[in-house]
Amino acid sequence: MWKTISSKELFKHPRITLIEDEVLLPNGHQTSYLRFEEKGEAVTIIAQRDDGKILLQKEYSYPPNQILFQFPGGGVVVGEDVKVGAQRELQEEAKVKAINLSLLGSYLLNNRRSTAKMHVFIAESLVSAPLASDIEESFEDFWLSEEEIDALISKGEIINGNVLASWVLFKNHKLNLL
Amino acid sequence: MWKTISSKELFKHPRITLIEDEVLLPNGHQTSYLRFEEKGEAVTIIAQRDDGKILLQKEYSYPPNQILFQFPGGGVVVGEDVKVGAQRELQEEAKVKAINLSLLGSYLLNNRRSTAKMHVFIAESLVSAPLASDIEESFEDFWLSEEEIDALISKGEIINGNVLASWVLFKNHKLNLL
Repeated sequence: MWKTISSKELFKHPRITLIEDEVLLPNGHQTSYLRFEEKGEAVTIIAQRDDGKILLQKEYSYPPNQILFQFPGGGVVVGEDVKVGAQRELQEEAKVKAINLSLLGSYLLNNRRSTAKMHVFIAESLVSAPLASDIEESFEDFWLSEEEIDALISKGEIINGNVLASWVLFKNHKLNLL
Repeated sequence: MWKTISSKELFKHPRITLIEDEVLLPNGHQTSYLRFEEKGEAVTIIAQRDDGKILLQKEYSYPPNQILFQFPGGGVVVGEDVKVGAQRELQEEAKVKAINLSLLGSYLLNNRRSTAKMHVFIAESLVSAPLASDIEESFEDFWLSEEEIDALISKGEIINGNVLASWVLFKNHKLNLL
């Protein structure tokens, strides 16, 4: 493990804080290391209907200036339980609520810079329960079979890293059930 | 698509620039949007031996202060071709070179903040070709079967999002070959 010698806040923004640490490596070398502190956690929800179809949504993404496939999800409010946040995001973005909502797994979003995590849920037994979403969001819904989602990945049409990482947790969870 | 009205550089660091854009949404609302500009691209390499075993490495990660499973890879030098960068990372981190190196696919690392991409390669026909790695890096090698890697994922032992996203590209590429 590395030893933190000192820590300096370089820049603070409501959405991110940049910190530069001076660290001592096990080999005796000293170096500076940039890391981010981001508020809150994030959730992704794989919503599966009783007929097996799964919800993928197309949404415009500003930084790459492209419409991307994604699963419902987003940031959890500070202090909000991740499962409560997942249910809320599902209601805002997919307009449904899950009678059964379980955590498939969690992963680090950017381990070289931060401790921020994505928590991936499977949502089943869906019932209509719309909540208003953020004004800047608009979605196009696609209810697809597992095979159709695998085919989109194979064709390179899913380029959002979080969809890919979440999908492997879903597939390997199914593997566990077999 | 959103219209960028103005763009302000909030903070500049050798590894990242923070920019805040004023944007006009299709619904007529105006909002500010934080994005990151990161230099260069990143690569992940799935190195598979002739016996089918794949290289996973354990490496200490400073921000979460944990030893994590990862595939070889890292940042590509600005101006360096991604395939050349992948071969170099493979030599530095796995001490081998691939006679066959092909791109499996690419994905956005953090589409809500940046255009940064990860390019995932499959490396086959491996030959010894060591290059010195960064002084702060030390690895423990594990050559595992596909089934063993799937089992680690199912057990929640792989928590690096990039390993998960890269793995699904590898699996779905195999799917294509069947």
